[in-house]
Amino acid sequence: MSQIVGSRLDPWVESYAARTASMTVSEIRSLFAVASRPEVVSLAGGMPYVSALPMDQMADTVSRLIRERGAVALQYGSGQGDPTLREQITEVMAEVGIHAHPDDIVVTAGSQMALDLMVRVFVDPGDVVLVEAPSYVGALGVFSAYQAEVVHVAMDEQGLNPAALDETIQSLRKQGKKIKLIYTIPSYHNPGGISQGPSRRQQVLEVATRNHILILEDDPYGLLGFDGEVPRAIRADDADNVVYLGSFSKTIASGLRVGWALAPHAIREKLVIAAEAAILCPSNYAQFTVSSYLATQPWREQIKVFRELYRERRDALLDSMKVLMPDGTTWTTPSGGFYSWLTLPEGIDSKAMLPRAVTALVAYVPGTGFYVNGEGRRAMRLSYCYPTPESIKEGVGRLAGVIRAELELLETFGPDAMPHTPMPTFGANTPAPDSL
Amino acid sequence: MSQIVGSRLDPWVESYAARTASMTVSEIRSLFAVASRPEVVSLAGGMPYVSALPMDQMADTVSRLIRERGAVALQYGSGQGDPTLREQITEVMAEVGIHAHPDDIVVTAGSQMALDLMVRVFVDPGDVVLVEAPSYVGALGVFSAYQAEVVHVAMDEQGLNPAALDETIQSLRKQGKKIKLIYTIPSYHNPGGISQGPSRRQQVLEVATRNHILILEDDPYGLLGFDGEVPRAIRADDADNVVYLGSFSKTIASGLRVGWALAPHAIREKLVIAAEAAILCPSNYAQFTVSSYLATQPWREQIKVFRELYRERRDALLDSMKVLMPDGTTWTTPSGGFYSWLTLPEGIDSKAMLPRAVTALVAYVPGTGFYVNGEGRRAMRLSYCYPTPESIKEGVGRLAGVIRAELELLETFGPDAMPHTPMPTFGANTPAPDSL
Repeated sequence: MSQIVGSRLDPWVESYAARTASMTVSEIRSLFAVASRPEVVSLAGGMPYVSALPMDQMADTVSRLIRERGAVALQYGSGQGDPTLREQITEVMAEVGIHAHPDDIVVTAGSQMALDLMVRVFVDPGDVVLVEAPSYVGALGVFSAYQAEVVHVAMDEQGLNPAALDETIQSLRKQGKKIKLIYTIPSYHNPGGISQGPSRRQQVLEVATRNHILILEDDPYGLLGFDGEVPRAIRADDADNVVYLGSFSKTIASGLRVGWALAPHAIREKLVIAAEAAILCPSNYAQFTVSSYLATQPWREQIKVFRELYRERRDALLDSMKVLMPDGTTWTTPSGGFYSWLTLPEGIDSKAMLPRAVTALVAYVPGTGFYVNGEGRRAMRLSYCYPTPESIKEGVGRLAGVIRAELELLETFGPDAMPHTPMPTFGANTPAPDSL
Repeated sequence: MSQIVGSRLDPWVESYAARTASMTVSEIRSLFAVASRPEVVSLAGGMPYVSALPMDQMADTVSRLIRERGAVALQYGSGQGDPTLREQITEVMAEVGIHAHPDDIVVTAGSQMALDLMVRVFVDPGDVVLVEAPSYVGALGVFSAYQAEVVHVAMDEQGLNPAALDETIQSLRKQGKKIKLIYTIPSYHNPGGISQGPSRRQQVLEVATRNHILILEDDPYGLLGFDGEVPRAIRADDADNVVYLGSFSKTIASGLRVGWALAPHAIREKLVIAAEAAILCPSNYAQFTVSSYLATQPWREQIKVFRELYRERRDALLDSMKVLMPDGTTWTTPSGGFYSWLTLPEGIDSKAMLPRAVTALVAYVPGTGFYVNGEGRRAMRLSYCYPTPESIKEGVGRLAGVIRAELELLETFGPDAMPHTPMPTFGANTPAPDSL
């Protein structure tokens, strides 16, 4: 819509690059702006609960940092990222079984930027990127920004399905397509809420290496499992065929914007040059803050605090859904991370239902946002990371009420009377980062 | 060089995007690594002298910020940037004559990122970007990353030459080329060290609007003039045909990585979507730090401190060059900013001379780094922003000695015996951000 209005008013409409055609603002954004009001229970956003951080210690750490090393912390730094922090990142990655050299790490302004750089370095317009069905909306946004052809591969209860992956690869290659990346979130999937087990990871890796396709392993939630065992990263078993993306957004704080990529040497070299073109260098200020925090605070204990907090909220979501949701509604059972993926009863469209949900003071992200092909209409992503357990229960009650009302409409007037999403859509189909 | 080695070892060499072909590491990088040793006087880098900041007040500001507003400062924020900071940015821009609405501002991870987003939104491979001759190396890096055709336009003692600009436009259009942007640094040019006067700016704007080409005005140094008068931005006289890039890197601190773009509404909307794909959102932590600093510290007074500091260093550079440089060496006289552009006597190649200069414990950036076409061999950029006046004098003495030695060689053995840069080069032809 806004594109059509823009076309008439914008004197530069003929000047944009071809890739800019995909950059349109979705009408759904205004709904999420409403959903950010305090009276709405938002099960939409993926905001970590940073209030659980020890703020006084954080403040002291930063204050000392500026007093003692301000001249460096407030200065330009290396395009690749601070060497001390890269050393510390190897310790963090050791928790998921990865043994890496600091020189193979590029620090970025959040792992979203690492994702952007990887696509910049690998993807020409029309190249194929394979992603899970569904997949992380922020990744789909990057792929579309570089005019990649995104192809979804089926998941099952263990995550990305290796047989489907292999079939998709063969079929695309028969069509002469160039497949550049397999993008996967093996641990506590966003939005799927499920994890690949160890043998599943081996199978996915086997299919990728046999076909010589690089795996892009996105792992923001790996340390946030609820079962005591930390899933071993795919990268832990193969340093040549996997680029690993990590983030401090969920283990420390998202507002710092510090993430990283771990890549084979030749790729890492190109990522650094691409990073320098993109932002010159990541913020020393944010990097040194993370580095000081890791050096002086009990960060492993703090991650345990986060785990317990999110486990309690996951339980609140699952328990209340079990009691309150109408028959025919199903959902995944996450063993870590931030999300559950809910499937509505046949005949109900999650995007069409969203305005009524927001009116009933509960918000979620419609499933279509996690597909590039209009799928996901019966699904939605529910986040339990930010609201308190009490709010979550309240929100699930409201949501169940809205679904029941839809079911009544459906029973009374039949499927033709039901509102539905008019056509496959993809765009900024999710909340803006601040409207979570 | 590294590309050839990489080709043999890198199993992914066939997988890279076409744009990645330009991403090679220059051999000059290792020289600058040497040049970062403390015994070398570096006139190479553009590092602001952040030690002049009141570190105790900075530390207190940040400490209070985290204690009082940590839950928001450490959280994800808006893709467009914090509304309060955008409001404050309008006050900063009022200093260069711009009256803008906060909604037209996009906050970015340094203005380098704003530049990257602008090129992402406007430039298809093969599109032309017009730049000054010479131009900022970081901008050339972005243009090349998006496969733009960069065309240099002559400067004179008043900066970008409007007649040459018009001629270049007509000639390129006759060749059927699409010109997307005119990239200019009108105030205290990097690396030229000169400024466009008011009537020159009007002429440049007239040529641009008559030809309907967008001006990309990069203004990191506008508030760092030495003559008391702040140059009026081009954007101050035209809100429709100019996108303005601003930065806190030189007025507060480069390590924060906070810059911005001010753009007409339709363009701003696309920049935000592109920014969300690139990094989700700029760092709330860095933004709130800037915002608190602006709200609680005498920032205009601090800019005056920086001005006086850089003026003293500029004087040290100019005075010692006047005394020490051999005949036939010329340079520009900056009235603000960080740089002077020096031209060597005929027959001396600045890039070929660099190893000898580094051996003599002085460093600069060879002129070729600021051109995409191999020009600039007789030129170099000298920065006076970071070393003390005493160091600058010492460095100029060493540099003059190296030039004299080259001149003696030239007189004794003739031009054929002189080392020269073997061919037009462009790449990471300047120091890495941390080797300044």
